[in-house]
Amino acid sequence: GFREEFLQLHPYDQAKFYEKVSPDSRQIIYRFLSPKEMAEIFQAIELDNDEYEEFMKEMDHRYAADMLSLMYTDDAVDVLNELDKTQVASYLTIMDQESAQEIKDLLHYEEYTAGSIMTTEYVAIPENSTVRSAMTILRNAAPEAETIYYLFVVNEDNQLTGVISLRDLIIADEDTLIRSIMSDRVVSVPVSEDQEEVARTIKDYNFLAVPVVDFQNHLLGIITVDDIIDVLEEEASDDYSKLAGVADMDTIDRNPLTAAKKRLPWLIILSFLGMITANLMGMFENTLDQVALLAVFIPLIAGMAGNSGTQALAVAVRGIATGQLEDESRLKLLLREAGTGLLTGLTCGVIITFVIYLWKHELLLGSLVGGAIFGSIFVATIAGSFIPLLIHRMKIDPAVASGPFITTLNDIISILIYLGLATMFLSQL
Amino acid sequence: GFREEFLQLHPYDQAKFYEKVSPDSRQIIYRFLSPKEMAEIFQAIELDNDEYEEFMKEMDHRYAADMLSLMYTDDAVDVLNELDKTQVASYLTIMDQESAQEIKDLLHYEEYTAGSIMTTEYVAIPENSTVRSAMTILRNAAPEAETIYYLFVVNEDNQLTGVISLRDLIIADEDTLIRSIMSDRVVSVPVSEDQEEVARTIKDYNFLAVPVVDFQNHLLGIITVDDIIDVLEEEASDDYSKLAGVADMDTIDRNPLTAAKKRLPWLIILSFLGMITANLMGMFENTLDQVALLAVFIPLIAGMAGNSGTQALAVAVRGIATGQLEDESRLKLLLREAGTGLLTGLTCGVIITFVIYLWKHELLLGSLVGGAIFGSIFVATIAGSFIPLLIHRMKIDPAVASGPFITTLNDIISILIYLGLATMFLSQL
Ligand SMILES: [Mg+2]
Ligand SMILES: [Mg+2]
Ligand SMILES: [Mg+2]
Ligand SMILES: [Mg+2]
Ligand SMILES: [Mg+2]
Ligand SMILES: [Mg+2]
Ligand SMILES: [Mg+2]
Ligand SMILES: [Mg+2]
Ligand SMILES: [Mg+2]
Ligand SMILES: [Mg+2]
Ligand SMILES: [Mg+2]
Ligand SMILES: [Mg+2]
Ligand SMILES: [Mg+2]
Repeated sequence: GFREEFLQLHPYDQAKFYEKVSPDSRQIIYRFLSPKEMAEIFQAIELDNDEYEEFMKEMDHRYAADMLSLMYTDDAVDVLNELDKTQVASYLTIMDQESAQEIKDLLHYEEYTAGSIMTTEYVAIPENSTVRSAMTILRNAAPEAETIYYLFVVNEDNQLTGVISLRDLIIADEDTLIRSIMSDRVVSVPVSEDQEEVARTIKDYNFLAVPVVDFQNHLLGIITVDDIIDVLEEEASDDYSKLAGVADMDTIDRNPLTAAKKRLPWLIILSFLGMITANLMGMFENTLDQVALLAVFIPLIAGMAGNSGTQALAVAVRGIATGQLEDESRLKLLLREAGTGLLTGLTCGVIITFVIYLWKHELLLGSLVGGAIFGSIFVATIAGSFIPLLIHRMKIDPAVASGPFITTLNDIISILIYLGLATMFLSQL
Repeated sequence: GFREEFLQLHPYDQAKFYEKVSPDSRQIIYRFLSPKEMAEIFQAIELDNDEYEEFMKEMDHRYAADMLSLMYTDDAVDVLNELDKTQVASYLTIMDQESAQEIKDLLHYEEYTAGSIMTTEYVAIPENSTVRSAMTILRNAAPEAETIYYLFVVNEDNQLTGVISLRDLIIADEDTLIRSIMSDRVVSVPVSEDQEEVARTIKDYNFLAVPVVDFQNHLLGIITVDDIIDVLEEEASDDYSKLAGVADMDTIDRNPLTAAKKRLPWLIILSFLGMITANLMGMFENTLDQVALLAVFIPLIAGMAGNSGTQALAVAVRGIATGQLEDESRLKLLLREAGTGLLTGLTCGVIITFVIYLWKHELLLGSLVGGAIFGSIFVATIAGSFIPLLIHRMKIDPAVASGPFITTLNDIISILIYLGLATMFLSQL
């Protein structure tokens, strides 16, 4: 029948189907599937924010609460985070009290911390177990645990003292003491750690999961690699959005109004920055009035400054984010960028001087534009790396140094350099 | 002693130490560690490209060959890919022939395909095994296999017919036939699949590994989640670099010359595009000559066009990359972006008209600039989404539609709109 056919599918495929069909068809799914089976579906997908609420409302209240209590706690928390407070409270009241308490505990952790992405379904074993008793604990825990491939060893106070992989466990002699074969240099993360740091730990050590502890080393939960992949994708989207000047690109925009809302903040800020640029240029109106040809090269110069600034910005932000710049001194990096700006600026400046000379036979104008390009690229490159380093120094995510902001700043710098130079040489033009 | 202390460290920490110390200290490490222990270190790090060659040359040739043959094949291939052909050949000749053959096979696969990132150290079991015999196979394979948490079920022709997790295996009755408890809807990837698609599969299904098959469904290897994390980070860096117009940001630049080499290609292309912009503007020299004030707003208008185009570009590129736009028709997306451009363009256009009117008391000039901003944002938004969609349609990675290119294109469009309008209304200005 339908039930058997459907349950043969991988939960992810079930979820894709569930998400797409009509509300009426979903009612059939709710009738045929147990709350536990429905929990598997909810664990397997990430819905759009409003879909969580919509789908939860379609379900019988009791059925929904049971489903939530049967989900891994981290996933239940993800769902509840999308609902309003009264709804959350109503589910937590009718849910079994153990699950409700676990969920409440996790709901308290701040967003983007280890606590907010950890789950409580781990396998913990006492230090003095034998391999045989550990295997028994593990078999019993298997249906509930999120991963059984790492067993976390704790003392009587639930403090983390070691870890052993199932891989090491199944090749060990049954009478061996866990303490003697576990790894006691266990890598863990503090519950308040930033999720990006947690991701780096999992990535560097190639872990399948990492334990989360409080400041007294009590084991609080684990974070599994599948959730870390989602963190990495979220953080990459986030950095990418910021470089492009779009607020939150994580969810796709289903209508132009929501899309416009995400893009307008930067565009409006930039309008005002642009007005400042216009105002500064206004100071050179006299120069522009005398040699209109000068204006023709403004987009070229401003564009080159903007682009080289964005390049330097991207290299610095990415280097900080991936930890590649960690060991290096800021001064050394800035000096290197100054060197890079010098080289790229000289190359482009010389090329452009030549092109203008060959094309317009104007050596002074060519040198002026070329010189302005050289100066603009040099300053823009330094600014593009200095600003994210400064922001990072202030303990703020360097990715907030958005591309459009740097571009506009560099517009201003380059125009001042260009029109300043032009004004100086005005009599010869 | 040193050896015991050192080996207590996690291989990743050993590797960090190894990488940092002087060549003399590394010689001590080579003397104390077996090729197998050294293999663990080499599996745990990603070195800079030239470090691979440097470190390999420090080792005794025989020792290095043994180390390579004891590494997981995918990691050995990563190392060899950084060496020159004669070196590769010399290691492969003295290595044990089985490892050499496995490595040679993998070296043939094209970069960025499933084949190029898979490894051959998987656990395969025959369909007609019992749980007991599967556990025996697994225990024997454990020291060699990259993961033992998934067992891949094959028929007599080595065709993939199913998969079973160790989790399901350890709770099953020992006499059960594998065939009766395995999942026969096994998700696999073709050997020529793009690595980004493989990553999506692992991410969506929350797998720890995925089997790789040829077109006749023969099992060729597996790809594990730790390597997929590296792929995701590499692809994210790649998209980020392209948006910023930097060729290959993956490795950090240790000197200004290499940095300049990565940034100059785009900067030079953009110089020439900028010259085209200047040339087009030259057509309006007369207009600019008559009303010099017009030039003052060019950076503002071009900036707004560039920024809104980059926003639209980023949303489209990211939507395509994460698969969120997959089910949607291109036309629908373009219409939505047109709507977004209309809304953002109108908002910014009206704001700027007002600001200029209040500030300079020039209603016509204000309307002209506001109108140009409206038109520029509208067109730039459509262009920013149309171009990546077109490129994707042509089966090219949409991320090549780099930010600087779109920005310069939108410079041109916006200047034509602005100076075109200004020329039309020149008599009234
Ligand atoms: Mg629960
Ligand atoms: Mg969460
Ligand atoms: Mg790794
Ligand atoms: Mg989870
Ligand atoms: Mg998850
Ligand atoms: Mg971040
Ligand atoms: Mg080998
Ligand atoms: Mg590889
Ligand atoms: Mg690709
Ligand atoms: Mg996932
Ligand atoms: Mg590997
Ligand atoms: Mg690897
Ligand atoms: Mg890509």
